Amino acid sequence: MSVLRSYLSGSWQEGGGEGAPLRDAVTGEEVARISTEGLDRSAALEYGRRVGGPALRELTFHQRAALLKALASHLREHREELYALSARTGATLGDSRFDVDGGFGTLFAFSSKGRREMPNDTVYVDGAVEPLGKGGTFVAQHICTPLHGVAVQINAFNFPVWGPLEKLAPAFLAGMPSLVKPAEQTAYLTARLVELIVESGILPEGSVQLLTGEAGDLLDHVTEQDVVAFTGSADTAARLRVHPAVVRHAVRFNAEADSLNVSILGPDAAPGTPEFDLYVKQLVTEMTVKAGQKCTAIRRALVPADRMEDVAEAVRARLAKVTVGNPANPDVRMGALATLEQREEVRRSLKGLLDAGTILFGDPAHVDVVDADAERGAFLSPILLRADDPARAEPHEIEAFGPVSTLIPYEGAEQAVELAARGRGSLAGSVVSADPGFVRTVVVGAAPWHGRLLVLNGTDAKESTGHGSPLPMLVHGGPGRAGGGEEMGGVRGVLHHMQRTAVQADPAMLTAITGRWVPGAGRTVTTDHPFRKHLEDLRVGDTVVAGPRRVTLEDVEHFAEFTGDTFYAHMDEEAAAANPFFDGRVAHGYLVLSFAAGLFVDPDPGPVLANYGLENLRFLTPVYPGDEMTATLTAKQLIPREGADHGEVRWDVDVTNQKGESVAKYDLLTLVAKRA
Amino acid sequence: MSVLRSYLSGSWQEGGGEGAPLRDAVTGEEVARISTEGLDRSAALEYGRRVGGPALRELTFHQRAALLKALASHLREHREELYALSARTGATLGDSRFDVDGGFGTLFAFSSKGRREMPNDTVYVDGAVEPLGKGGTFVAQHICTPLHGVAVQINAFNFPVWGPLEKLAPAFLAGMPSLVKPAEQTAYLTARLVELIVESGILPEGSVQLLTGEAGDLLDHVTEQDVVAFTGSADTAARLRVHPAVVRHAVRFNAEADSLNVSILGPDAAPGTPEFDLYVKQLVTEMTVKAGQKCTAIRRALVPADRMEDVAEAVRARLAKVTVGNPANPDVRMGALATLEQREEVRRSLKGLLDAGTILFGDPAHVDVVDADAERGAFLSPILLRADDPARAEPHEIEAFGPVSTLIPYEGAEQAVELAARGRGSLAGSVVSADPGFVRTVVVGAAPWHGRLLVLNGTDAKESTGHGSPLPMLVHGGPGRAGGGEEMGGVRGVLHHMQRTAVQADPAMLTAITGRWVPGAGRTVTTDHPFRKHLEDLRVGDTVVAGPRRVTLEDVEHFAEFTGDTFYAHMDEEAAAANPFFDGRVAHGYLVLSFAAGLFVDPDPGPVLANYGLENLRFLTPVYPGDEMTATLTAKQLIPREGADHGEVRWDVDVTNQKGESVAKYDLLTLVAKRA
Repeated sequence: MSVLRSYLSGSWQEGGGEGAPLRDAVTGEEVARISTEGLDRSAALEYGRRVGGPALRELTFHQRAALLKALASHLREHREELYALSARTGATLGDSRFDVDGGFGTLFAFSSKGRREMPNDTVYVDGAVEPLGKGGTFVAQHICTPLHGVAVQINAFNFPVWGPLEKLAPAFLAGMPSLVKPAEQTAYLTARLVELIVESGILPEGSVQLLTGEAGDLLDHVTEQDVVAFTGSADTAARLRVHPAVVRHAVRFNAEADSLNVSILGPDAAPGTPEFDLYVKQLVTEMTVKAGQKCTAIRRALVPADRMEDVAEAVRARLAKVTVGNPANPDVRMGALATLEQREEVRRSLKGLLDAGTILFGDPAHVDVVDADAERGAFLSPILLRADDPARAEPHEIEAFGPVSTLIPYEGAEQAVELAARGRGSLAGSVVSADPGFVRTVVVGAAPWHGRLLVLNGTDAKESTGHGSPLPMLVHGGPGRAGGGEEMGGVRGVLHHMQRTAVQADPAMLTAITGRWVPGAGRTVTTDHPFRKHLEDLRVGDTVVAGPRRVTLEDVEHFAEFTGDTFYAHMDEEAAAANPFFDGRVAHGYLVLSFAAGLFVDPDPGPVLANYGLENLRFLTPVYPGDEMTATLTAKQLIPREGADHGEVRWDVDVTNQKGESVAKYDLLTLVAKRA
Repeated sequence: MSVLRSYLSGSWQEGGGEGAPLRDAVTGEEVARISTEGLDRSAALEYGRRVGGPALRELTFHQRAALLKALASHLREHREELYALSARTGATLGDSRFDVDGGFGTLFAFSSKGRREMPNDTVYVDGAVEPLGKGGTFVAQHICTPLHGVAVQINAFNFPVWGPLEKLAPAFLAGMPSLVKPAEQTAYLTARLVELIVESGILPEGSVQLLTGEAGDLLDHVTEQDVVAFTGSADTAARLRVHPAVVRHAVRFNAEADSLNVSILGPDAAPGTPEFDLYVKQLVTEMTVKAGQKCTAIRRALVPADRMEDVAEAVRARLAKVTVGNPANPDVRMGALATLEQREEVRRSLKGLLDAGTILFGDPAHVDVVDADAERGAFLSPILLRADDPARAEPHEIEAFGPVSTLIPYEGAEQAVELAARGRGSLAGSVVSADPGFVRTVVVGAAPWHGRLLVLNGTDAKESTGHGSPLPMLVHGGPGRAGGGEEMGGVRGVLHHMQRTAVQADPAMLTAITGRWVPGAGRTVTTDHPFRKHLEDLRVGDTVVAGPRRVTLEDVEHFAEFTGDTFYAHMDEEAAAANPFFDGRVAHGYLVLSFAAGLFVDPDPGPVLANYGLENLRFLTPVYPGDEMTATLTAKQLIPREGADHGEVRWDVDVTNQKGESVAKYDLLTLVAKRA
C-alpha cells in the first residue's frame, strides 16, 4: 500500500518510511498509508507566499469567483469517485452527498457572493466614506487588502471534502493561497480531492497546497501575514492557539471546536402538532447523519418537563427503524464511525454521560448490522439518553462525538435559555415552535452563546436546511467552547483573510487609491456626454453638468394632478408652512428626480442601456416654486462584468438649487455596454 | 499619602498595606500610593455580569448613546482638574488636551454613531436578509446581541484618560459593562476620571468598575462571555493571550501592542514643496507630543536616499527649537516621560538602535530643561537617529518608547513598501506626497501591514488630524507586532462586544425576533391608512395596497415632454425593441415611482411629515404602455427618536403589474410625528 502524497512547493511529494495505515471504517481493510517524514513545511509556506499569493493578487474578485465556479463544475464531474472513497469512511450515500455536494455548493455560493457583493477589482472597499473635516478636504475610507501569507487550514476528519472546500473558497476569493492539512483518519479522500483540483489546472499554481499527514513543525514557520484556521477538538485548538509563533506574531487563529448543541421543543408543540413531529424527526436525523459525527449535531434535546415521556417514546420508535450497517447497502440508514478509535472515544464519553443519565435507546456495546462485521467496522448503535436533573454538569459538558443525544427537561423559556447557555458556547441551536413570543425570548436570550440558531416549524419546514447544516452565506462558528471562531458568512468569511486599513486622504487621492470617485475629488466635464461613452472609455470622475431648470408652481400643480400625488405640502400653502420642515408649498421629491433625469439624459441610442436602480437617495433641502435646479452627474464606480457585453456604472448625482445648496443626492445605477 | 481607591462590586475600596508610591514625572514627588491587596476581582466580575450587564441590556442603543453624550458633557466641566493631574504625568497642556479632550471627543463620536448608525432597539441587525429557499418560507438574518460578560480593559500608562474612554465607549454602547484597569504609573489620573464618572450617577450602576492596581488573579475568572482588551507591550500581550482561562474559554482578546510606525516622504516632495515641510513638521510633532510616548508615533522616517541630508538638516533645525522642561511653563514644548524607569527603558532601547545608526540630534544622557530638575524629572532630549543601511534589523525591530525616531533611506516605491512591511505589523503609517501613482502603490502595497494609513499633502494638510491620532470612526489596531487587534472604527468597535448569530426562520418569525418586517411575513391591511397613524400607533407590517392604475402611451409621452426625459426607450418603438432589456417602448422608472406615490399618498395633513429619502431601489420588470400598476406599502422599521417629537419610518414598497410581477421595489424613508 503506497503512502498518500502531499502537494508542496509545486510538486507531488511522498513522506518517507512505511507510513501508518489508514483503515476502511466498514471492513477494517487498509486503504492507504500516511507519512510526512522529511517533507519541508517551511519551504511550502514560503512557496505559497512567493508563488501563490502574487498570482492570486493579480486577479480581481470577479476573476477569482469565476475560477471557483469553474472548479466546482469540474469537481462535480468526479463526484462518483469521491462518493466511493467517502463510503470507505463509513458514510452512506446521503452522508457523502452532505459532504461532497455540500462542498461543491459552498464553492458555487462563494463564487456567486464574489460576483454579486464584491467589486471587479483587487481592493475591497469597506463601509462608507467618513468625512473627517468640515472643509471636505480630508476624508477616510476603510479598505481591505489580502494578507500576504498563507491560509493554513487544519481540517477535521468528519468532513473530508466540505471541510477543506469551505475554508479554501473564502481564502481564495480574498486572494490568499491555502495549505490544506486534512485529519489523518480520512486523509485519503481529501488527498484525492486536492489531486483533482491540482490536475485540473484551473487554479493558479501555488494557490492550493496539500500536507497529507502530521502538522509537525508547520506552525513554527507562520508569520503575521498568515492565517490559521482549525476545526477539531477543543484540546487541540487550545494547544495550537498558544503555539509560540502564533502568539509572537499575533497570527489570526480561527477555531471551530467542541459544541454541545441544543434543540429546544416549544411548549406549544404538543403531540399531534407539526412541530412535535418535526422535532422528533430532526433529532433522529441529527443523531444518525454521519453517524452523529457532526460538530453541529444535537447533543442536548431540551423538552418541556411534561413532554418528556411523549418525546422519549416518539424518538425511540423512530430510532428503532434506523438500519445500521454497510453504507454501500441502500437499505442502510446509518453507516460506521470513521475509525475504531473514534468508537472507543464515544464509548468513553458515554460512560461520563451515564453518571447523570440513563439509556432510553441503544446499547453502547452491541448493534445489529447489515452487510458488515459489527466489530471490524466502527459500528455503534444510536444512543438516546435521558438526564432528569438539568442542573447536572455532564450532559452540558461531555460531547460524545457519535450518534448520541440526551433528553433534558426544562420549565419555561427562561430556563431553556439558561440551559442552552450551559453549553458555554455552541455552533448551532434550534427552537422548534410556532409561538413567536417563546421564539423571540429564546432566540434573543440564547443568541450570545450561539453562532447560528434555527427556528423550525410548520411554516418553514419544507424549505428548512436543518439544524446541522452550516450554510456558506451564514456565519459558522460559536463563542467559548465552540472555539470562538467565525467562518463563511458570505463576504464576512472572505474578509477574515484580508487586512482592514483605514485610509485617510484628500478626496482626489482616495479616488486614486480605491478607483472609486469620492465626493470632493475633481470632476472631469468632458465635451462628449458621458452617456455616449462605452464602458472601456469611461473614467471615474467623468461628469455632465445639466441645467438650470426653473421649477414653477404650475409644474408642481401639474405634477400633482398628473401623478395623483396631491399631498398637502405641495398643494396647500398654509398647511405646508405649518409643517416643521417646510416654509410653504414645495415641489415633489419625485418631480425633482424626474426633472433631474430630464436634464442629464441623452436621448439617442447609445452605450447606456438602462437605469436599473437608485441608492442612498436623500432629499436635503426643499425645492420651492421659483427655485432653479442643476443636476451634476459624475461617474463614481465602473464594474465591468467578466464575459458579458456590458457592465454596471454607478453615478453620483447631486441636484443643487440656485444658491448652490444640494437639494437631493443619490447614486444612479446604470447598465452600460462595452465596445462591440 | 493615601492609597488610590478601586470601585468594585458597587463600592469604593482601598487595597491593603502601605502600597507602592506613584511619583510626579516632573518633580519626583509622591502623588499617591497604589495597592490592590485583598481586593476581590472575581466578585467584581460577577457583579458586572449580574448588575451592570442586565441594567445596560435594558437600554436601547439610542438610550445608551444619550448617556454617553451626557457623560461627555459632564466630564468636560471637570477638564481643568484633569489637566492639572495630567501635568503630573509629564504632559504639557497640549499633550493633556490630546489625552483628555481626545477622550471626551471619543465619547461624543460614539454617541453620535450610536444614534445615527444603530437602531433604537436592543438587537442590532447585521447585513441583509438572506433568502435560503426559492419558496420564500425560509430566510436568515444575522443579528448581534451583547455578550453577557464584562469587558476587562487593561490600559497603557500613556493615555490615562483617552485610553479607558475609547475602550469604555464602544463596550457601553454595545450593552456590556466595563472593568477598567489603568496602568500603575499614571493610575491616579484614571482613578480620578472614574471617580467623576461614578459620582455623576449618569451611567447605570455596575456598568463601570475600576481596579486601581495589579491585575492579579483577574484573568483567572474570565469566561466565554467576557472580553479582554489590552493596550501595552507585546510581551505582556503575549503573556495575557496564553492565560489558561483566556485560552480555555476562547475569550475574545484584543491587543494593541508595539508598533514601529513609518512615515514615508514621497520622491515628489523636494525641499521647497509644501509636502517636504509637512513631512518635517509632522515628524517633529510625532517625536515630541507626549514626549514620543505614543504607540502611533513615527519611529521610522523613510526618506528617498538622495534627500537624506535635506531632511536631516530640516528636522535638526526644528528640533533645536523644542524647549524641554516643566510642562506647567507655557514656553515648554515637550514635557517629561511618565517615569524615571521609562527613561531608563528608552535609553536601553537607544543602545540597541545605535548598533545600526548614528545620532543626528540630541544626547541620551543630557538635556537642558526649563523650570525643572533634569535628573529628578524623567526628562530626555528628543533623539534623531540615522540608519544608512535599511537592511539592518534594529530600526525595524527596536521600539524606543520616547522622543526617538530614525531616518532610513529608500529607493523607489517598491522598496518603501518592503521596508514598511519590515515593521511586521503597525498601527499607523503615513505617506507624504502629492503624487497619486506613488501614493496608490505605497498605500495598497503597505495596507496589509497597517491598521491606518494617512496620506498627507498640501491639499488635506489644513484639515488633517495627523499621523498619530487614532479617530473613533476609524479602526485602531494593526496586525502582527501591533497586536493583531482592532478597536473603535465606529460601529465595528461596538460589534466587537457582541455575538453575531445567524438566525434562520420563516419571515414572520424573523419579523417577531428582529422587530423589522421581513418580506414574506404577513401584512396587516388596516382600515385606517397607515399614513394616518402616529409613530406609537404604527406596527411593522401595517400595509396599504393602492391601485391599480393603468399606464398609457400618452402618460409616457406626456411625462417625457414634461420632464424633458426623451430617452429613446420611452419614445421610439423600434429603437427600444433593439435594446437588449426591452421589448418595445417602456415607461420611465421615475414615472413608475411618481405614479406609485400618487397611488399610496394620503393628501391631508397627518402624522407623516416628509419623505426624506429612498433606498435600495431596483427596477425589476419593464412597464409597458397598457400595464396596470399596484403599489403595496408596508411599514418595515419604526425608529422613534429619543427626546424628539417625531421618528423615522422605513416602508417597504413593492410595485407590481397586472401579472403580479414586481416592477420596482424600494425602501421609502419618512419622518412621522409622535402623538402630541
